Amino acid sequence: MKIINGSVMAEVIKSRLREENQNKQQCPQLAMILVGETPENKVYAALKEKAAAAVGAKSHSHILPAEIKKNQVLELIDELNSQNTIDGILLQLPLPDKLQPYRDRFLAAIDPKKDVDGFHPENRGLLMGGRPAFKSCAAQAVLNIIEQYSEAKAKKRVLIVGNSFDLCLPLNLMLLQSGYQVLLQPEFEREALLWCDVAVFEKGCAGMINGSFLSLLSRIQLIIDAGFYYQDTKPRGNVDTASLNGYKGALLPVPGGLGPLLIAQLMVNLTAAGERL
Amino acid sequence: MKIINGSVMAEVIKSRLREENQNKQQCPQLAMILVGETPENKVYAALKEKAAAAVGAKSHSHILPAEIKKNQVLELIDELNSQNTIDGILLQLPLPDKLQPYRDRFLAAIDPKKDVDGFHPENRGLLMGGRPAFKSCAAQAVLNIIEQYSEAKAKKRVLIVGNSFDLCLPLNLMLLQSGYQVLLQPEFEREALLWCDVAVFEKGCAGMINGSFLSLLSRIQLIIDAGFYYQDTKPRGNVDTASLNGYKGALLPVPGGLGPLLIAQLMVNLTAAGERL
Repeated sequence: MKIINGSVMAEVIKSRLREENQNKQQCPQLAMILVGETPENKVYAALKEKAAAAVGAKSHSHILPAEIKKNQVLELIDELNSQNTIDGILLQLPLPDKLQPYRDRFLAAIDPKKDVDGFHPENRGLLMGGRPAFKSCAAQAVLNIIEQYSEAKAKKRVLIVGNSFDLCLPLNLMLLQSGYQVLLQPEFEREALLWCDVAVFEKGCAGMINGSFLSLLSRIQLIIDAGFYYQDTKPRGNVDTASLNGYKGALLPVPGGLGPLLIAQLMVNLTAAGERL
Repeated sequence: MKIINGSVMAEVIKSRLREENQNKQQCPQLAMILVGETPENKVYAALKEKAAAAVGAKSHSHILPAEIKKNQVLELIDELNSQNTIDGILLQLPLPDKLQPYRDRFLAAIDPKKDVDGFHPENRGLLMGGRPAFKSCAAQAVLNIIEQYSEAKAKKRVLIVGNSFDLCLPLNLMLLQSGYQVLLQPEFEREALLWCDVAVFEKGCAGMINGSFLSLLSRIQLIIDAGFYYQDTKPRGNVDTASLNGYKGALLPVPGGLGPLLIAQLMVNLTAAGERL
């Protein structure tokens, strides 16, 4: 098994971006909106802040109380849209339950040209036959790995397990646009493994793919783990790496895989947003 | 083989809509924009006009010369957006080659609430995890047939051949949202038939699926033909119905299948748009 080191790849991307921002003498500015201060929000915000600093960009966190009114969120978005100094705007998801119904309304309020997450409905919609200003960072990161690690992509079959709007569905569209065949399963059915060359697991549970799957993995050349769980305070993914010794393909594992690559991809988008203005 | 009569089903839908519009004492107004007067444009416009009349709605064709400037198209769209009497706006596709690069810009200019084709990028994007004002008529028509003709949809596998933005991609997303598994092939690979329960053929050629496929169709319960070609002045689809005698499932054929259902679905959207205002 070849384990792909997402952390190292992310560092390579970020140092390229750092150089790019230096050469262009630009310092892209990211505004992050956090509604409710959960431990997860804080962790993600800190990671993004650190990545922004690493590429010569800057991020500003706007932390709103969880019980804020929807109009106040919209007002903040409007304000950030109108600020010329802000290149990218990001609304940290998920929102508190009470505001969740307004998610698409908030995302639609962000200027599509500052939508570095690629979540504006228009940017999502342009994944079908158009040219979005930005694409989902997670989906782009996975697509890049697939392009890099699968030989002769023509007619390659990619299995995607899950149907999230931030990864699975945009990835599905981006793969199709690139000429792959895609099998998307909202719920995992294991026999699909016999039919595909690449497998992306988002929906599942910690350690779902383990040694008992070995015989089903003989065709699979690349596994992307896109699950993230905490078990006994340790981060785990859908794939139980340790028990997959006999697997002959490549694996983007959790931790140290998609997480850092996703954030690096956000910095790619932010750097592009910095140029745009 | 059971041949599904799309024409009859379309009539049923339209007479229900006629009643609905009568009961609500409304006459929804559809504005159709045709850029360049091609024979196809004329045929489609006439079919939609006839259907509108049949359901107690009204359609108005705006025929623009093929060499019109893009700003003039945008001006007409703006004008129709602002007219309270217009409930639905439809831009007939494909556009002349010179205007084709502006397709998404034109579609994005249409008020999403009048976008009865469901082609506004925002309405397309909301197919991923959101609630579009309108959905692609062709995709909705196919989804309806699949829901009606496939028993026990849980874990049903649907093969879609093609990656068009107006049918295949939105259908893909709508099926996933409904819990189906979807295998989408930009190019057809026949072994996929052994793995799926329903097959939707858009990309192909006249008569592509013929008697030589019989042994591969034993698992397939429903075929949707979404190809449309003229051969010796006769309309033909991807499926050569006559040679599929031994096939045991159901078929939505061409002609008399998706075509009339798509137009009926447009009238469903138009009627909903009429209520909205």
